[in-house]
Amino acid sequence: MAKKEIEIKKQLEDIGNKILKDVKENRVPYLKVPARTTNNIVFDPKTLCYILGDKTLTRSAGNIRHVKPLAQMLKIGAFCKELVSEGTKHETKRGLYYISESWGEKLKFDEQQESDNLIEDIEAIIEKPREDIHIIPNPGGSVYGDLTLKFKNPAGKDMQINCLQTADGQTIGPRMCEAEIVKCNANKIIAIETAGMYNRLMEENAHKKFNAILVSLEGQATRATRRLIKRISEIKNIPTYIFTDGDPWGLHIAMVIMAGSAKSAHVNRMLATPSATWIGVTASDIKKYKLRSDKLREVDFTRIKELKKDPRYKQDKRLQEELKLWEDIKKKAEQQALLKYGLRYVVDDYLPAKFKELGANVK
Amino acid sequence: MAKKEIEIKKQLEDIGNKILKDVKENRVPYLKVPARTTNNIVFDPKTLCYILGDKTLTRSAGNIRHVKPLAQMLKIGAFCKELVSEGTKHETKRGLYYISESWGEKLKFDEQQESDNLIEDIEAIIEKPREDIHIIPNPGGSVYGDLTLKFKNPAGKDMQINCLQTADGQTIGPRMCEAEIVKCNANKIIAIETAGMYNRLMEENAHKKFNAILVSLEGQATRATRRLIKRISEIKNIPTYIFTDGDPWGLHIAMVIMAGSAKSAHVNRMLATPSATWIGVTASDIKKYKLRSDKLREVDFTRIKELKKDPRYKQDKRLQEELKLWEDIKKKAEQQALLKYGLRYVVDDYLPAKFKELGANVK
Repeated sequence: MAKKEIEIKKQLEDIGNKILKDVKENRVPYLKVPARTTNNIVFDPKTLCYILGDKTLTRSAGNIRHVKPLAQMLKIGAFCKELVSEGTKHETKRGLYYISESWGEKLKFDEQQESDNLIEDIEAIIEKPREDIHIIPNPGGSVYGDLTLKFKNPAGKDMQINCLQTADGQTIGPRMCEAEIVKCNANKIIAIETAGMYNRLMEENAHKKFNAILVSLEGQATRATRRLIKRISEIKNIPTYIFTDGDPWGLHIAMVIMAGSAKSAHVNRMLATPSATWIGVTASDIKKYKLRSDKLREVDFTRIKELKKDPRYKQDKRLQEELKLWEDIKKKAEQQALLKYGLRYVVDDYLPAKFKELGANVK
Repeated sequence: MAKKEIEIKKQLEDIGNKILKDVKENRVPYLKVPARTTNNIVFDPKTLCYILGDKTLTRSAGNIRHVKPLAQMLKIGAFCKELVSEGTKHETKRGLYYISESWGEKLKFDEQQESDNLIEDIEAIIEKPREDIHIIPNPGGSVYGDLTLKFKNPAGKDMQINCLQTADGQTIGPRMCEAEIVKCNANKIIAIETAGMYNRLMEENAHKKFNAILVSLEGQATRATRRLIKRISEIKNIPTYIFTDGDPWGLHIAMVIMAGSAKSAHVNRMLATPSATWIGVTASDIKKYKLRSDKLREVDFTRIKELKKDPRYKQDKRLQEELKLWEDIKKKAEQQALLKYGLRYVVDDYLPAKFKELGANVK
């Protein structure tokens, strides 16, 4: 086992040992779990993330309603310890729910919500994302560029790949998002909302022209993709730029990459990339580039109002102005609307202009 | 240009030349287009596919309502001819819609439905899928196994990859689905509905154990994935097995791979794999393996009734029996429900038993 796995295994064992010790020393066994309730979710202005406060809950074997989840948490811990020890095995949250069938009538989960909840408790206790205990998120998104990664392949063999050695990009799944970053010959990451625009940038050699790693989000970024972006960005100390459709939903796709979500306050610090920047398509771009647009609908205006009040947006003058401008022009546009100027326009004109505007290196 | 591209370029030119000839010879220009209307969609019992009948529509410059779409079709043809000639450039249907902005007020599309419709007309005229004229589908799905593919990478360079050289599988996008199959050391394809089960099979070495190429569908298979399955299966003459959740929706995911959909009767022959077989999870499996199940809901029963009447299901006794059994047991189960017997059960027991039952080679 690698150093990281040994540490995680110990953290899982510590949970069990705490209970054992209580029993041996004649105490009613209990565990303290960071509270993930609304009243313990606080906004951290420094990272722009929602994080957990200091409140904890106590799950005690002395409380009849706690006995079952306490035992179930220990079962999950034991199962994940096996996965981590094996090294190359992973399961999904859904898989874990079904695995509990074999734990017997008294311990099996009746609903997946119950097992999901306990996995999040373990994440909060060990202060590590569930990927580290081998409970993996769905794959989704794709990466392309001069990035060399090292990992154990699904069969457990050490392997190294370069993310240019692919036809359509490398799928970002459980092994990619945790892979060791051996080499990264790029000075920025460009994350792209739609698969169509990602393909356009690949075919126009944007990765070379901008010295960039290209990441396809395919809508709202999966957890695996957010984790990979954060890791490359922080380990290699390179900035991330997010290129979305020009509407409040596109902007919020960028925001979740930058600051995470309120719902996952206990893991935002491990998933968010606070240094990332939204490129656009901005409301200003819709005007400036005379993009084909659609009228904003009632649901879009409601969303804009929500975002204007959201603490993650409150401190950012640029984002506030763009939200206001959307309300004024009452229009939204997709990133592919830039194609009206030709296939190469987005790499020859639009992105270079945006990088200059944002004070970023073009090359 | 390769032989294939030269042929397609000529087919696109033929459309334009037909119009030119009419003009030169003083005829009112027109085009004959295979009718894609309901009354021209017929069921072909041999391939189990919906295909187009012999009816054609005439689009004539003599009809004021036909002039605009006729001219737009020629513009699409000219644009795609450029893409095909460049060799490495592709666009999406959405992208094409936006590109039409540059064709001027009279020719640009008001709705994407209009350009989509004309692309399908061109597919029907040239009897080739739109991938061949470089109008690409969304990527989706992933492939893993001992399969060597050759293609021009997004930057236009010849490249060869093996689909074991990856962390989480190779994304199936526009270049993968059309790649040249250099080598395939497998005797079957296993297509899997959920990403979770795909990962389980990868980690349990199912590709080695069953001598198989593993394909992740991630729900309803994308067009790119269906095309890749068909191409591997037919070029290498190996069977395809489809492993889905145990409900009518899972079964129909398999059916669309086997026989296509009524909506795409004009291209089913280029996308469907009639020789493919549904593995399950069957209704019988739910009983036999005592899987954790959910009650079928009203919408499930309605779906079962529809499928029982569908000609694609009518001739298949096994599928009819399974549909009936679902109605009897009133339950559905997910493929991950097999995990109750442990992580290895699906490769050690379930799949070998199913391959034997279906008369397939296990190894």
